Amino acid sequence: MANSRFPVIEIFGPTIQGEGMVIGQKTMFVRTAGCDYQCSWCDSAFTWNGTGKADIRMLTAEEIEAQLRDIGGDTYSHVTISGGNPALLRQLNELIELLHSLGISVALETQGSIWQDWFLQIDELTLSPKPPSSGMTTDWDQLDLIVVNLAGQKRNFSLKVVVFDETDLQYAADVHERYKQVPFFLQAGNDDVHEQDSALLLNRLIERYKWLVDTVIASSELTNVRVLPQLHAWLWGNKRGK
Amino acid sequence: MANSRFPVIEIFGPTIQGEGMVIGQKTMFVRTAGCDYQCSWCDSAFTWNGTGKADIRMLTAEEIEAQLRDIGGDTYSHVTISGGNPALLRQLNELIELLHSLGISVALETQGSIWQDWFLQIDELTLSPKPPSSGMTTDWDQLDLIVVNLAGQKRNFSLKVVVFDETDLQYAADVHERYKQVPFFLQAGNDDVHEQDSALLLNRLIERYKWLVDTVIASSELTNVRVLPQLHAWLWGNKRGK
Repeated sequence: MANSRFPVIEIFGPTIQGEGMVIGQKTMFVRTAGCDYQCSWCDSAFTWNGTGKADIRMLTAEEIEAQLRDIGGDTYSHVTISGGNPALLRQLNELIELLHSLGISVALETQGSIWQDWFLQIDELTLSPKPPSSGMTTDWDQLDLIVVNLAGQKRNFSLKVVVFDETDLQYAADVHERYKQVPFFLQAGNDDVHEQDSALLLNRLIERYKWLVDTVIASSELTNVRVLPQLHAWLWGNKRGK
Repeated sequence: MANSRFPVIEIFGPTIQGEGMVIGQKTMFVRTAGCDYQCSWCDSAFTWNGTGKADIRMLTAEEIEAQLRDIGGDTYSHVTISGGNPALLRQLNELIELLHSLGISVALETQGSIWQDWFLQIDELTLSPKPPSSGMTTDWDQLDLIVVNLAGQKRNFSLKVVVFDETDLQYAADVHERYKQVPFFLQAGNDDVHEQDSALLLNRLIERYKWLVDTVIASSELTNVRVLPQLHAWLWGNKRGK
């Protein structure tokens, strides 16, 4: 029965998706708490390092949907579920099915360390394996299995790798080579998630994006790829809830 | 026989596609000369107002492909054809088929005023009808026919409307309402295509993009839409050939 409770740390929107395969999409966000990773540069570390603990509420799918409607009214038809790692939540199909029944599309991002059957229900699924600069280690067997399952069912999904340096870029090229047929996105990393001056941050982010664009342009390994910034950080800096 | 000649005004890249449905895609650009429109704010007016006349060369598909390879080497597998309006060129299938035979994907942008059978061969087709601020008038019968043909063949295409003001935004909402099932992109217009100071231009473009994002966020007509800037103008200003 549909009465599981999920650890939700933020619900906000509507805003635009600032990155990845549906960049620019008008969407609401549901952010779940808890992660099996602890990336060194995580821009949402409050979801797993204890600092956001007081904000976590255990909500049912119906309660999440009611809150979305409360703050979004009739201005949205798309919801993005992010984390933390929402793939930790085995019963998340309850939320996805409820949103679908209301005509709402659902996007989700996860690092590709855990499979859930409800991945097949997601309208736009982003797998974002983490490069060496994160300090994490990729479980290639698990990622292989996830990609094979999704590709076999012809699902709408993509791979996205955040890049901070040349070592990350080589990792990105390896991921792209391994899963050549999967739409592939490179994202310039935000290496200053604590900068509060949005103008200074913007200059830095544009410089990092330009570096990534120029490097990819020159590459013969990375040809059929997309290179994107994080638009939300360009617009609103490191603010939460935008 | 594949020996038509096409009026080409620019070939450049690789760079990234700065806007629309494949924003961020690493791509080469082929820009054709000639347009059936004369938009007031056209950022490529040199393709039709005579100022770029000396740059126009009449090239065959083979010659275009050779030039792409000359400047792009082995660093690309995607080509974007833009204009002007490339839909003026009835035999453009010769170029599309040649590129496909080499494993290269082809994106194309046109305003949706003219149908060509080769639209069905394009991998990512953007229809960009022009809003009131352009000074142009939309031929709705023609646009209807194009959308019906593409949707009927389940092609990968989208609508994109550039928005400069509230009147344009209402036009965008009307287009979206008319073709509700077609992926819909709103793009913040660059109202200063002659500004040569890239830093000044960047501030202005971000401000215009924020305005569009905030306006769309508040709308209950525009829900399942994507709102994007022109990334190339943010990175490189109003320079040609980037």
